[in-house]
Amino acid sequence: MRTAEVIGTVTATAKDEQLVGLKLLLTNIIDGDGGVLEHAIVAADTCGAGVGDRVLITYGSAARLPAKITGAPVDASIVAIIDRVSLG
Amino acid sequence: MRTAEVIGTVTATAKDEQLVGLKLLLTNIIDGDGGVLEHAIVAADTCGAGVGDRVLITYGSAARLPAKITGAPVDASIVAIIDRVSLG
Amino acid sequence: MRTAEVIGTVTATAKDEQLVGLKLLLTNIIDGDGGVLEHAIVAADTCGAGVGDRVLITYGSAARLPAKITGAPVDASIVAIIDRVSLG
Amino acid sequence: MRTAEVIGTVTATAKDEQLVGLKLLLTNIIDGDGGVLEHAIVAADTCGAGVGDRVLITYGSAARLPAKITGAPVDASIVAIIDRVSLG
Amino acid sequence: MRTAEVIGTVTATAKDEQLVGLKLLLTNIIDGDGGVLEHAIVAADTCGAGVGDRVLITYGSAARLPAKITGAPVDASIVAIIDRVSLG
Repeated sequence: MRTAEVIGTVTATAKDEQLVGLKLLLTNIIDGDGGVLEHAIVAADTCGAGVGDRVLITYGSAARLPAKITGAPVDASIVAIIDRVSLG
Repeated sequence: MRTAEVIGTVTATAKDEQLVGLKLLLTNIIDGDGGVLEHAIVAADTCGAGVGDRVLITYGSAARLPAKITGAPVDASIVAIIDRVSLG
Repeated sequence: MRTAEVIGTVTATAKDEQLVGLKLLLTNIIDGDGGVLEHAIVAADTCGAGVGDRVLITYGSAARLPAKITGAPVDASIVAIIDRVSLG
Repeated sequence: MRTAEVIGTVTATAKDEQLVGLKLLLTNIIDGDGGVLEHAIVAADTCGAGVGDRVLITYGSAARLPAKITGAPVDASIVAIIDRVSLG
Repeated sequence: MRTAEVIGTVTATAKDEQLVGLKLLLTNIIDGDGGVLEHAIVAADTCGAGVGDRVLITYGSAARLPAKITGAPVDASIVAIIDRVSLG
């Protein structure tokens, strides 16, 4: 999994029907200090996350395990809103 | 998932029979401002996308969930045409 | 798999219910000499690992094979605590 | 999927028995203009491709969908020989 | 798949029980000329490979197809010892 910061939202009218009702958030992958490691990963939200939240993203078939996502063509999901990263 | 811009089309005569009838588009992965992050990802279209469209691409086994793709040896699909990316 | 060093812990209250009870560790991917190759990979612990340990991380659906992880939306797990890397 | 150019062949005697009879080709991932993006991806051929051909490579579990590949420990396959990449 | 050179071994006492008895080798991903492309990939051996051998590595669920690996939390396996890479 990766830690990420939510930076925006993605809106689409023409889309796979299994994506209807899913909130798609634009995120940057960050390190433990908030430094950006990778830009512009779109993840389906399963936790009520919003812009500015630090979140945990899971990739691949794991992203479709949360109940809200089952059956949707999603390869990345937000599975937690991070309270704290403790280093050392 | 990643946001991408469609930049071209890929044509092939000799191909896996499960690819027959699929539209294969060449795309660049972009960030929220349209900056190119990665070049030359080929994705199967499921949304009627065309050159110049900003699209949402999903990878891996998720790419084979849309009905048009089932059974095809595809690892990336266009699952939405993006209307708007809202930052901040 | 990758060799990694555990550098911290990730805490989250709002999370997928299948993540409850899992220890999520922040790691850096390292080479055989301990040099950092990639930052900030979060992995679920299955071995009792702690900060400072050198561990073996497995990705993807393999990460959900350990008994403790089954059903959780996890794409990276610590599956061993490394005693020794012998080079050459 | 990625566009690639076939640059060589890989020969092995000691190998998984499911690889026997498969042609393993060395390729470079290229962009729409033929520029090299990534070196030395080995893919199983399913299309009769040869050195110098521009091909379409699919990764992951998708690589095992072509009939010739079923059951082999393969994570990349050539699923088309590209006739033309049309840009713009 | 990738071509790699075996550079060492990884030893672990505390590990997933399904890893017991598997030989874990440290490798560098190389190109057709032996140049290093990526460092420190750990792969389970299925071919009797040793340090200095040039091998073929497969990733993902494909890595668990060889009989020796079934059920182990492994995302990379050595599936061939390479005799020869022929370029051009």
